[in-house]
Amino acid sequence: MKEQINIGIIGGSGYTGLELVKILKGHKYASISFLTSRTYKNKDVGEVFPSIQGSDKDGLVFKETATKNDYKKIDLLFLCLPPHSSMEHVKNNIDNKDLKIIDIGSDFRINDPGSYKTWYGKDHVVPELLKDFAYGLPELNSGLIKKSTYVANPGCYPTSILLGLAPLLKAGHKLDHISIDSKSGVSGAGRKLAQPYLFGSLNNNFYSYSPQNHRHIGEMEQEIKKISGQDYKVDFTPHLLPVNRGIFSSIYCKVQEDLPDDFGESITKEYSDFYKNSIFVKILNDGIPQLKDVVGTNRCLIGISFDERTSTLKIFSVIDNLLKGAAGQAVQNMNLMFGLKEDEGLASDGIYG
Amino acid sequence: MKEQINIGIIGGSGYTGLELVKILKGHKYASISFLTSRTYKNKDVGEVFPSIQGSDKDGLVFKETATKNDYKKIDLLFLCLPPHSSMEHVKNNIDNKDLKIIDIGSDFRINDPGSYKTWYGKDHVVPELLKDFAYGLPELNSGLIKKSTYVANPGCYPTSILLGLAPLLKAGHKLDHISIDSKSGVSGAGRKLAQPYLFGSLNNNFYSYSPQNHRHIGEMEQEIKKISGQDYKVDFTPHLLPVNRGIFSSIYCKVQEDLPDDFGESITKEYSDFYKNSIFVKILNDGIPQLKDVVGTNRCLIGISFDERTSTLKIFSVIDNLLKGAAGQAVQNMNLMFGLKEDEGLASDGIYG
Amino acid sequence: MKEQINIGIIGGSGYTGLELVKILKGHKYASISFLTSRTYKNKDVGEVFPSIQGSDKDGLVFKETATKNDYKKIDLLFLCLPPHSSMEHVKNNIDNKDLKIIDIGSDFRINDPGSYKTWYGKDHVVPELLKDFAYGLPELNSGLIKKSTYVANPGCYPTSILLGLAPLLKAGHKLDHISIDSKSGVSGAGRKLAQPYLFGSLNNNFYSYSPQNHRHIGEMEQEIKKISGQDYKVDFTPHLLPVNRGIFSSIYCKVQEDLPDDFGESITKEYSDFYKNSIFVKILNDGIPQLKDVVGTNRCLIGISFDERTSTLKIFSVIDNLLKGAAGQAVQNMNLMFGLKEDEGLASDGIYG
Amino acid sequence: MKEQINIGIIGGSGYTGLELVKILKGHKYASISFLTSRTYKNKDVGEVFPSIQGSDKDGLVFKETATKNDYKKIDLLFLCLPPHSSMEHVKNNIDNKDLKIIDIGSDFRINDPGSYKTWYGKDHVVPELLKDFAYGLPELNSGLIKKSTYVANPGCYPTSILLGLAPLLKAGHKLDHISIDSKSGVSGAGRKLAQPYLFGSLNNNFYSYSPQNHRHIGEMEQEIKKISGQDYKVDFTPHLLPVNRGIFSSIYCKVQEDLPDDFGESITKEYSDFYKNSIFVKILNDGIPQLKDVVGTNRCLIGISFDERTSTLKIFSVIDNLLKGAAGQAVQNMNLMFGLKEDEGLASDGIYG
Repeated sequence: MKEQINIGIIGGSGYTGLELVKILKGHKYASISFLTSRTYKNKDVGEVFPSIQGSDKDGLVFKETATKNDYKKIDLLFLCLPPHSSMEHVKNNIDNKDLKIIDIGSDFRINDPGSYKTWYGKDHVVPELLKDFAYGLPELNSGLIKKSTYVANPGCYPTSILLGLAPLLKAGHKLDHISIDSKSGVSGAGRKLAQPYLFGSLNNNFYSYSPQNHRHIGEMEQEIKKISGQDYKVDFTPHLLPVNRGIFSSIYCKVQEDLPDDFGESITKEYSDFYKNSIFVKILNDGIPQLKDVVGTNRCLIGISFDERTSTLKIFSVIDNLLKGAAGQAVQNMNLMFGLKEDEGLASDGIYG
Repeated sequence: MKEQINIGIIGGSGYTGLELVKILKGHKYASISFLTSRTYKNKDVGEVFPSIQGSDKDGLVFKETATKNDYKKIDLLFLCLPPHSSMEHVKNNIDNKDLKIIDIGSDFRINDPGSYKTWYGKDHVVPELLKDFAYGLPELNSGLIKKSTYVANPGCYPTSILLGLAPLLKAGHKLDHISIDSKSGVSGAGRKLAQPYLFGSLNNNFYSYSPQNHRHIGEMEQEIKKISGQDYKVDFTPHLLPVNRGIFSSIYCKVQEDLPDDFGESITKEYSDFYKNSIFVKILNDGIPQLKDVVGTNRCLIGISFDERTSTLKIFSVIDNLLKGAAGQAVQNMNLMFGLKEDEGLASDGIYG
Repeated sequence: MKEQINIGIIGGSGYTGLELVKILKGHKYASISFLTSRTYKNKDVGEVFPSIQGSDKDGLVFKETATKNDYKKIDLLFLCLPPHSSMEHVKNNIDNKDLKIIDIGSDFRINDPGSYKTWYGKDHVVPELLKDFAYGLPELNSGLIKKSTYVANPGCYPTSILLGLAPLLKAGHKLDHISIDSKSGVSGAGRKLAQPYLFGSLNNNFYSYSPQNHRHIGEMEQEIKKISGQDYKVDFTPHLLPVNRGIFSSIYCKVQEDLPDDFGESITKEYSDFYKNSIFVKILNDGIPQLKDVVGTNRCLIGISFDERTSTLKIFSVIDNLLKGAAGQAVQNMNLMFGLKEDEGLASDGIYG
Repeated sequence: MKEQINIGIIGGSGYTGLELVKILKGHKYASISFLTSRTYKNKDVGEVFPSIQGSDKDGLVFKETATKNDYKKIDLLFLCLPPHSSMEHVKNNIDNKDLKIIDIGSDFRINDPGSYKTWYGKDHVVPELLKDFAYGLPELNSGLIKKSTYVANPGCYPTSILLGLAPLLKAGHKLDHISIDSKSGVSGAGRKLAQPYLFGSLNNNFYSYSPQNHRHIGEMEQEIKKISGQDYKVDFTPHLLPVNRGIFSSIYCKVQEDLPDDFGESITKEYSDFYKNSIFVKILNDGIPQLKDVVGTNRCLIGISFDERTSTLKIFSVIDNLLKGAAGQAVQNMNLMFGLKEDEGLASDGIYG
């Protein structure tokens, strides 16, 4: 374990970058060596984001780009870039094969170049690296993450969904279908200036989007196969919620086989056992998770309800899309990669009482 | 057609009663003869609800209860009462068999007394009347409504869902399963004083509730059977949205049979044809309906998306729970029962631009 | 009184234009002859704004610009244009001096060209017309409006504030100072695509803006002088509320003279008397107006509270900025100009119960 | 400095108690010895408040009441009780005169028993103790707080307002009047089950309340006199915002004397100088503070704008009512009383980006 981890952040001015900075500021072993932003180059982080306390006195300043020399000083690079930009960045800037990288973007989550093209519509520019990136979902993958140099941080929707499905799939139950209805706060779309994201458009409103072929499906089906050995096709529909932060995924699984009378209780117990050593996942014995209870935390709360009438297991899984769905999980991965306590710097409670 | 319809309203101070008063005030042929409220007895409606314009000058005053004499003066009675109260009210107060009744509550939606007990947990007190109540979903049932003395106004969730499913079921498609994920604004819960409905609890929040055996399932399956001839069991999960008004139902139907390549377009056309004479239902050719576009109207907007990968037809159906899901639909039924234009008094546009 | 008023609307696709269309659709004597929008040229109004019920069947289509011939067919022109655009439009397009014009924009509210330049930073391009525009606040100015060909619709803030101050000023009370703290919903800023108006920026947020020299001050002080004969300088600070619609103005007036013990009651009575014939203004005897009670209506609710400790009269005045603060008041002015009932087409109640 | 501070909390289940628990959990030197709640007696804190991460594993359980023995084990007592309850609690339970107490309630903020009766409507039950309580506003009073055994934590509104006014008053400027328009999120009202606090009532809404004689005025005028030596009467009007957390105070001060041309800049500099050693107060050089930038922090952001036209200095002061306005400031006081760094445990950044 190193005394201090020197960190570079590329693309630090989006919602995810901002959350990353906040977490790392309070992290015992992390030191931000540089962070970049084209939009805010040469500006003080605390000036750009007044919600960051005191950082204006710390002299943390956005750089336009990182130099060769900057890369030499760091132990870990976080990439917070839009689709297609992470792979370009890696291709053009990374010489040192030992530099640890956590890509919070989407370019390295798909293992197979062909599948990447299917879901992202482009050829991958460094396809040879895809196999080197561990899928950074620590609750399922911590062994691999610990020994990897490269980690692809999962998407926000897949994080909530895979954590919700894993115990069921691992237990070997056969499912007729998996229907997933996810709802996300608007920060999932970043700070994009577009009509649908205006307060006047979204407040008092709700709707679904991308009802077909959302990019996160590729990554979900890939990981579901790793977990279950089965080629499931999931029916996934995201919706936009009039809240700032948080994802609520409702997962409906029709269970195929004849089920024992106590399936409801036994499956809840299986879930609790599965996550008994997972600091950030909590199975609720009764009741249903609420979005407000995870916002501001790195947790995933899961509630389970078995509907005997229709043999449907309903799994409700909630996370903060910016933390467990992005920056928080990235730091959880960092902690594992550097041999730290898994929850170092990630102890924050929810903001809503 | 009568020149003027004299109307009594029992339970006029809830959200539904208030919307009913607003609509009837602007209705060319309606005249409110009396309305009751225990909470607000002897108070002027405009004083209790300052959002009602001018009514304080009209002298519309809440009565505690209606007298025998009050009933004699009216042509139509609206019941806006909680579960179990409508049937008690009908049993104890209604002598005149010819008095038209529209029950906006839930007591007369189930046709079979046994089924009523299953879903509502009590014996019905006037089971002999159940068969006399037409299920008041005008788009599917206008013939029956027109000639009925008694109409049971559908539940808010079933309205959005049955309108979304009817064309598919009528077309005879066989479905493997029907999974419904509905989201409702908080006015669906009335003005109940309880922790979960506080602003501090619900703002920034979202969650599911009653994930099993919600009472509206009985009424949905009953009507689905009438439409399709099939005994479908639906998997239904309601959720609570941080908005005042509106229901967004996402309906996922796995279609069984081999489907033609152009199923997506052909089914959209079937929907449009099905509703071509329905004033209040609109099928969106592309895109997805938004909650904000129906709030303040009596409309139902429906969007359809066929996911070939999973053979799932996704139907998105949105309504204003207080209008098409309650008071608006009640007046639509009244219009049919009294031979008026179906949209008399119901022309209001949405409030959000 | 004409049987039908043929109407042209320039700039019909903003929030104000949309509300205007909704009102006119339900107005007994109004007929929209044309409406223009650069952004949505050739598009159906109902397609652009799905919240408008049924208009897609009516064939109301946005034109890019209006032709000479278009102007010939109309009795009344509504201008819904940004600052500086109304005067350019009038200069370049209006030949017929008898065509009635209601400018909902800000170009003709200031009577004096010099004062216009002070507050709007430009020379007026048709200064000779300024004196011909009546200030369209019907509760104070109906006589003038009725006989005017041109009417300048007041700003949203000034409407709430002038209605709140008029009875006090008319009664001849001398004031030491007038401090006004107004709060507006975001629709006051139109649909502008800018960071501060994103849902992610405004939800859970609140702040003041333009704390000095807001343009509406010029118009307020001009009208205050007309009402009181005094040269008051008002201290005015607008704030942005996380709501879609509505303005809440808190007006603090330090009253100079020795006041009788019953000043609180007597001034409330003066207010009630002042507005006893005003359909849209209501003085609340007790309590305080709430924003939600005016949203969706053309009303102004006013509450008054006299603080003896500090000799401060607190006046709370609330309106819907898009109706009484814009399109609703414009139609109220139209009604007066054409000899119709003042509330023709303006009977809508509030949307929130 | 003690290695560990053992802490008792009376009334730990309200919003303030919850925030206090969250802060103390992350505080290096704090250890919660007990906390009480009648409502949740014997329940685990993490079960009652799922937003608290991990506490369900820590075994922190609400006690119904604290025993004599409990009091013996602690170094500090926090009181989070409604008006009139703190003084009763102190009278009936506190024997040990050396036990440090921080009252987050309102019973010990007023120094004079007569004034207490005026503002709170009751005789104080331990009037002899009032003089022993330091007014716990650390930025103005740290010397006294450090040496006091008893501290009265200021009210949320007074905190925002006194921090906003202090530099101006200390500089000796004479003011004609002070008009304060404050806006608070709903958590200021606690979890009270009442119609106005329902989501359906407050969302899309805004209004003022208690426009006369709000209890916080007494405490403000008392402290203003200590700061300025003057008997100012403030005109104060609170309003309710549709947000969970935060207070935005707009303070309008008419400055009496002839002012130099550069008053705007010089006063801003005076403010910056005044707070140059205050960790939690930040004067914004330009622009206006936003509510979202303090929610989740213990900070106070202040913006200043001088309106030459009306000789009015406008001061905008924002805090999180639950942190700097309650639990955060209480811990800041604790830090001072125990010789710790002032910001120990209080480094959290804002939740909104």
